[in-house]
Amino acid sequence: MPTNRAVSYQGPGKVEVVDIDYPTFELKDGPGVHPDNVGRKVPHGVILKTVSTNICGSDQHMVRGRTTAPEGLVLGHEITGEVVETGPDVEFVKVGDIVSVPFNIACGRCRNCKEQQTGICLNVNPERPGSAYGYVDMGGWVGGQAEYVLVPYADFNCLVFPDRDQALEKILDLTMLSDIFPTGFHGAVTAGVGVGSTVYVAGAGPVGLAAAVGAQLLGAAVVIVGDLNEGRLAQARSFGCETVDVSAGPVEDQIAQILGVPEVDCGVDAVGFEARGHGKDSAQEAPATVLNSLMAVTRAGGGLGIPGLYVTGDPGAPTEDAKEGSLSLRLGLGWAKSLSFATGQCPVMKYNRALMQAILHDKVQIAKAVNAKAIPLDQAPQGYHEFDEGAATKYVLDPNGYLGTAA
Amino acid sequence: MPTNRAVSYQGPGKVEVVDIDYPTFELKDGPGVHPDNVGRKVPHGVILKTVSTNICGSDQHMVRGRTTAPEGLVLGHEITGEVVETGPDVEFVKVGDIVSVPFNIACGRCRNCKEQQTGICLNVNPERPGSAYGYVDMGGWVGGQAEYVLVPYADFNCLVFPDRDQALEKILDLTMLSDIFPTGFHGAVTAGVGVGSTVYVAGAGPVGLAAAVGAQLLGAAVVIVGDLNEGRLAQARSFGCETVDVSAGPVEDQIAQILGVPEVDCGVDAVGFEARGHGKDSAQEAPATVLNSLMAVTRAGGGLGIPGLYVTGDPGAPTEDAKEGSLSLRLGLGWAKSLSFATGQCPVMKYNRALMQAILHDKVQIAKAVNAKAIPLDQAPQGYHEFDEGAATKYVLDPNGYLGTAA
Amino acid sequence: MPTNRAVSYQGPGKVEVVDIDYPTFELKDGPGVHPDNVGRKVPHGVILKTVSTNICGSDQHMVRGRTTAPEGLVLGHEITGEVVETGPDVEFVKVGDIVSVPFNIACGRCRNCKEQQTGICLNVNPERPGSAYGYVDMGGWVGGQAEYVLVPYADFNCLVFPDRDQALEKILDLTMLSDIFPTGFHGAVTAGVGVGSTVYVAGAGPVGLAAAVGAQLLGAAVVIVGDLNEGRLAQARSFGCETVDVSAGPVEDQIAQILGVPEVDCGVDAVGFEARGHGKDSAQEAPATVLNSLMAVTRAGGGLGIPGLYVTGDPGAPTEDAKEGSLSLRLGLGWAKSLSFATGQCPVMKYNRALMQAILHDKVQIAKAVNAKAIPLDQAPQGYHEFDEGAATKYVLDPNGYLGTAA
Amino acid sequence: MPTNRAVSYQGPGKVEVVDIDYPTFELKDGPGVHPDNVGRKVPHGVILKTVSTNICGSDQHMVRGRTTAPEGLVLGHEITGEVVETGPDVEFVKVGDIVSVPFNIACGRCRNCKEQQTGICLNVNPERPGSAYGYVDMGGWVGGQAEYVLVPYADFNCLVFPDRDQALEKILDLTMLSDIFPTGFHGAVTAGVGVGSTVYVAGAGPVGLAAAVGAQLLGAAVVIVGDLNEGRLAQARSFGCETVDVSAGPVEDQIAQILGVPEVDCGVDAVGFEARGHGKDSAQEAPATVLNSLMAVTRAGGGLGIPGLYVTGDPGAPTEDAKEGSLSLRLGLGWAKSLSFATGQCPVMKYNRALMQAILHDKVQIAKAVNAKAIPLDQAPQGYHEFDEGAATKYVLDPNGYLGTAA
Repeated sequence: MPTNRAVSYQGPGKVEVVDIDYPTFELKDGPGVHPDNVGRKVPHGVILKTVSTNICGSDQHMVRGRTTAPEGLVLGHEITGEVVETGPDVEFVKVGDIVSVPFNIACGRCRNCKEQQTGICLNVNPERPGSAYGYVDMGGWVGGQAEYVLVPYADFNCLVFPDRDQALEKILDLTMLSDIFPTGFHGAVTAGVGVGSTVYVAGAGPVGLAAAVGAQLLGAAVVIVGDLNEGRLAQARSFGCETVDVSAGPVEDQIAQILGVPEVDCGVDAVGFEARGHGKDSAQEAPATVLNSLMAVTRAGGGLGIPGLYVTGDPGAPTEDAKEGSLSLRLGLGWAKSLSFATGQCPVMKYNRALMQAILHDKVQIAKAVNAKAIPLDQAPQGYHEFDEGAATKYVLDPNGYLGTAA
Repeated sequence: MPTNRAVSYQGPGKVEVVDIDYPTFELKDGPGVHPDNVGRKVPHGVILKTVSTNICGSDQHMVRGRTTAPEGLVLGHEITGEVVETGPDVEFVKVGDIVSVPFNIACGRCRNCKEQQTGICLNVNPERPGSAYGYVDMGGWVGGQAEYVLVPYADFNCLVFPDRDQALEKILDLTMLSDIFPTGFHGAVTAGVGVGSTVYVAGAGPVGLAAAVGAQLLGAAVVIVGDLNEGRLAQARSFGCETVDVSAGPVEDQIAQILGVPEVDCGVDAVGFEARGHGKDSAQEAPATVLNSLMAVTRAGGGLGIPGLYVTGDPGAPTEDAKEGSLSLRLGLGWAKSLSFATGQCPVMKYNRALMQAILHDKVQIAKAVNAKAIPLDQAPQGYHEFDEGAATKYVLDPNGYLGTAA
Repeated sequence: MPTNRAVSYQGPGKVEVVDIDYPTFELKDGPGVHPDNVGRKVPHGVILKTVSTNICGSDQHMVRGRTTAPEGLVLGHEITGEVVETGPDVEFVKVGDIVSVPFNIACGRCRNCKEQQTGICLNVNPERPGSAYGYVDMGGWVGGQAEYVLVPYADFNCLVFPDRDQALEKILDLTMLSDIFPTGFHGAVTAGVGVGSTVYVAGAGPVGLAAAVGAQLLGAAVVIVGDLNEGRLAQARSFGCETVDVSAGPVEDQIAQILGVPEVDCGVDAVGFEARGHGKDSAQEAPATVLNSLMAVTRAGGGLGIPGLYVTGDPGAPTEDAKEGSLSLRLGLGWAKSLSFATGQCPVMKYNRALMQAILHDKVQIAKAVNAKAIPLDQAPQGYHEFDEGAATKYVLDPNGYLGTAA
Repeated sequence: MPTNRAVSYQGPGKVEVVDIDYPTFELKDGPGVHPDNVGRKVPHGVILKTVSTNICGSDQHMVRGRTTAPEGLVLGHEITGEVVETGPDVEFVKVGDIVSVPFNIACGRCRNCKEQQTGICLNVNPERPGSAYGYVDMGGWVGGQAEYVLVPYADFNCLVFPDRDQALEKILDLTMLSDIFPTGFHGAVTAGVGVGSTVYVAGAGPVGLAAAVGAQLLGAAVVIVGDLNEGRLAQARSFGCETVDVSAGPVEDQIAQILGVPEVDCGVDAVGFEARGHGKDSAQEAPATVLNSLMAVTRAGGGLGIPGLYVTGDPGAPTEDAKEGSLSLRLGLGWAKSLSFATGQCPVMKYNRALMQAILHDKVQIAKAVNAKAIPLDQAPQGYHEFDEGAATKYVLDPNGYLGTAA
């Protein structure tokens, strides 16, 4: 049985590569596994040899100590892998297939899965609807920043790439299908982006950039990205976006300079609850800032897509309200403008096949847009650190050398 | 030229019937008329002899002094009337037609009107998108709680009833097409109500009851209405709704007793910014109460329709946040449940023809559901007072005797 | 091992009750089983003790000898049953559950199933997308007009009723969830029926009546049903429909008498390829008659839902064109009116949960509307005969006495 | 009063430039004007000085003598112009504006216009829903292949370009907004094209090429265009389409060579009723060929968008069926595959603003894709002739020298 080295959370600010058990077709007890999931049989699962697995901004919430994630939690919910073993109930996925795994684990058998709402599957997380690999309060499924990982309900969850060689050739693009590309795209879709739209994306991290790419793919006329981080804004400009430095004056004024009017058709919040103010507030978090700003700059009748994460509890938040996930929102303004708001995890499966097609037929260069960079598994701690510092880079771990990062 | 008696706001708590000018095809200066609208020509308008015009909950916000409405403002945005004069540009509406008028005034020529978003027409209110008759900050179009009223862009705005006698026979139902029936229905539609849905409607005032009726018409399996006012809850039960007394314990527990599960598919907020707490908070407004409660009881993946009014500024509000229309919302909870939120004025024209058909073919009894009561124009002040006291009644004014209320 | 008596096709016009093997978790060879399906393992299946199983109009096509169905084929795709055995891969459906089974067999793992298009599942019928129990060219899954039946992919396919006693009490309604209620409803939905619509349903057989009920549930203002069979029209009138005797003059004239205009918003074809002409053509099939008539009576911009079956090959058809499933359609007329056309098997799973809710909460009486009649399995041949003769009755077989039909 | 030279139909195969009356705000009698429209007042109209006006494939049907168009009919429904005079009821469009005019004339006041179905306006054509400039049986509104043209309901119909200089600079792209770009786009939209779709467009004339561009703008992964005309196919390849020569073997085989599978997600019929067969049928029209072929190559569950024109009557057709607009369609095949079909005139207004945005922000090069070529008005007869011969060119007339074609 092969070794299985994995990236593990070891307390606030600490991430280490450790040895864990090689997966079997059962969910065993371990850090963060929900008691009701301990011992759960997974005959419908496959074991993947990880081809690529990305560091995500939402991993950072745990690593910064902003959640109740236990020490020892194996991280990683953005997984692409080669099937090396299939459970007895797996019928269509085959050993040797290279597959993309949606970060949301879904059973394919509950009401929500049947209605394409795989982000809130009812059967995989005993605590509440919705689940993910390697994430606090998400059922305890072992993370995929590892050499090997178990994927349950594999016939339902796996997106099989049609050709192995082609897949490996475009792997830095395809690896984004497990989370950020669909997540950003979902933000654009739920904001109502279509052909000819003008769009403002708040946040130029990987999800924001993916939302911008998604908006372009949907035919947007102009995509404007706002952030405080000039390196990330430069990244946005590299593929045709306009940008706004939110510290340089009111967003609406900067939008007016670009468009002639101080408003856009659609707004995307790719920041979430750790939003910071700027100007004199810049030292502090200001969780409602982004949404209130989006309500101001989105035209009457427009939509707001909110892929940015907001949490039900945030013990480290600066205010009592924020600790329970409450925000002081200018809903009166939103109401006067007849805005709509779409929240929640992206149901990756709704989009990943279509986005794969766009990648395979060269209609989109998502890896370049988010500045994907492959690094060996061993360098994961450094990748986490640099990403936390604001590097305009999407780090892709290469646990098994498929990406050729071996020293 | 006939007289024109009308209901006028005369300061907090005061409503009087006064004499105003008979309308012409021009918007003249007067209380609340936006300067840029003064002198506006209305060759596309018709003059209506009012058949019926209803008192609305949103009128109460002004009458209670919660807005900047000027004294002398003529009230009334729920208007049904007989065409007595047509402007030179009117081509299809004819003298003698009985018509329902959407409360949102719309030009039919701007981008939003062309996209069916008549609630945020760009050309009728110089201040911001969206307009209404007899309402503060809505452009200054004269209200319709009067013997006669001017309706601009009449070919676009008027819904002509196919048969005059049939219309007068069903007038107490048809009068609800100008606002509350479409508004409640819009709440149900935007909450995602469909065949088989379970629905919770917060608020058993006329809009809440109309939302409940709308949900039934859309095929809902169970409609539950919550309020503090037992008379209004009894009204909801009269047409087949389940009810929840929100002062009698957690809403989710009461829903569980009805449905077996503590949640519904869809939630409708028919209360808005003047929401009150209950139990120990009952003396105070608690503007975020209703929305936070709806997030708690709506199932993951569900929708919230928010026809209840939230305002951009509320000088009389209890907190600084509330004064600028900000609410402390548990967005983290909503996000975790992938909820969506739809706000704003109902675009009445999107629904009024279909709902008229349902009324004319006896598929719905909206007048009975909201307990419509016709009263003479002179009794308007008393109607306003009783409605404000919580009467489970929808007051319909009868300025010209069409409804037979003459003493 | 129990006996397993079943209804079997024995050649044109002949249906008999015969003994067949008790099901196992494998699809064995037999009449109509596709070679590639022979020996297929079904660990994801359950064995049902049949509670109710209905005779369908589409069974008649086979029984009349209009298809290539082999002798010995076990009939029946409208199945409700009690789970008596579960395969090793079944995780959520339990022994003792009473479940409704969509007539379309679906894997829950292919692209189409993931997109809610379970009527064209890619993995269950080696011949082409889409499958059904007991039907020619549909893969060879054994029919359910039997005491026991195997249901594959049971966690995905079975709709579990929440309460056993309640289910048995309403079983004559719930039995319609396996096919005709969703099928008729799908016809209405795809025709664009909504609140306030006027609807014309061609055909007053069970699917037509179910479409009419579905249209009512969707809020239609007026539902008009047309047929040549007065008994079936009387059945339609029994639940509030208007009717048209298509032999009594042009349909548009009769519609005009009802509505005042000679057209409806939405049209549903619940007849299909065995349509007959009337008047001087009455002796002959005229397969394009219904669709051409629907194009004439549906208003410009309207939709046509086509749940009625059209086949790719019909060896017994009267013309060469019809033999290969070609119809002479007035597409020029449809185009001039900007009509849309929706065809195909109903994806039952998209609707059955919602319609179950409507039944369980007494919002609809589908059994009464289609005149459901339970008969013992032994009387199946007589049921087939009477139905073929035009009885205004939906026959429900009772193989195990759950419905109390035992002599 | 200026002269007004215009392109006129003078009998089968004959087109001439003639002098006609300068427009006034009244529809006067003339060739093809419906009696009920004679003398109609148009105070809501504007008079345009034509900037550009394109020759359309649907004009060819008339010119070939395939319709009942009267001699003297002024042609032209693809119109872009400068406003030189406004009627008394025009409020928002101003003299000097450069505007695009949807080919469908629409009142903006009827049920259909309110529901965005401007292609079937109820008030402009006394004969049936839907109208157009310069077209047989469309009400008789004078065509725009002229120096000056009257546009009714101008506030509703005109799309004003935001900047005059920018508009004239991009005029060869913007001129396509009046018809073929939205029409092709509508074909793609109604076929269900989205991000990642594979698409087959039958027909590489201007509408087919516009559909291909539209599909690309919607994010299609692969767009395949089929035709018999190699020049037009080369044009399709010039902007990234794959192509199929339909005379070179079965379309499905050629698609399989491109995609690896013999089917596409979406099909667009950009040919219409004058379709021709190929191989041994090549000499003859075969009006059902295209639709039957599309049913064969579109995957189960897919959609067919049908912007290609089918007519209600075609006196010159080769068969009796075709003369009344009937086609022998393989509906059985379509039904087995659960296909949907969308027909009719494109409601241009639904799309033109969005497509204008895409042009103005350089997201699309429609002029280049359809090989737009500006010619003086005088050369219209030659343009008609070359286009009829199959030139891979979209001819744009320049009646007033805005396009700089003056000799």
